[in-house]
Amino acid sequence: MTLDHVGIAVKDLEEARQTYLTLGFEVGPVEELPERKLRIAMVRLGESNLELLCPTDPDSPVGKFLAKNGPGIQHLCYRVDNIDKKIEELRAAGVRLIDEKARPGAHGTRVAFVHPASVGGVLTEFCEHARA
Amino acid sequence: MTLDHVGIAVKDLEEARQTYLTLGFEVGPVEELPERKLRIAMVRLGESNLELLCPTDPDSPVGKFLAKNGPGIQHLCYRVDNIDKKIEELRAAGVRLIDEKARPGAHGTRVAFVHPASVGGVLTEFCEHARA
Repeated sequence: MTLDHVGIAVKDLEEARQTYLTLGFEVGPVEELPERKLRIAMVRLGESNLELLCPTDPDSPVGKFLAKNGPGIQHLCYRVDNIDKKIEELRAAGVRLIDEKARPGAHGTRVAFVHPASVGGVLTEFCEHARA
Repeated sequence: MTLDHVGIAVKDLEEARQTYLTLGFEVGPVEELPERKLRIAMVRLGESNLELLCPTDPDSPVGKFLAKNGPGIQHLCYRVDNIDKKIEELRAAGVRLIDEKARPGAHGTRVAFVHPASVGGVLTEFCEHARA
């Protein structure tokens, strides 16, 4: 397993992009993800990336996170080869799942979230990338 | 730049190690870092690792984080080739530094923290690893 990305909740996506450019990072363009009620931008870091997450709806998961916690790190996502097998293993280990089945993520991925109560307060996602 | 590690504040290090073992991760042994008032364990993930941080003193930075926020993600650390050059670049860009000069970190690293106010609420560390 590798760390795929760190999800960071931001209030102003252009300001956040500028912040990471100022720190010397390579920052991708703004992407619109209306089905997730998000506008995002990737900060490219080799194997693992940052995903800057800006909600377009205060009732979305990231919108609620921002209202409760303010801007900051929202979740960690790990890359696996087979998300269905991973979900089965987690269920067998008694881990509390938010997604009982994999659902579509960004860029053709299939993803599942684990409840933070099962991971010491850390909202945790697993993802499987589309095969080339 | 690459993501070196994600620092995660935990209340009980043995419980946190067990949590990540249950999730299928490779977890290192407990390390004692008395000069940082921490006991830590690494979760190994390829290029980037998790650092499970358990304070031995409530007045330490991680102890204060736990008291305020509860367990969860505390900081992100990026690896650079030359920490002194990076600090100069950050200062020139007007970034607010916690450490004006690099100081010793774990495992022979040299580190500097940037204030979360300059990074959208994310406590951010840069580190330079010892040369082989």
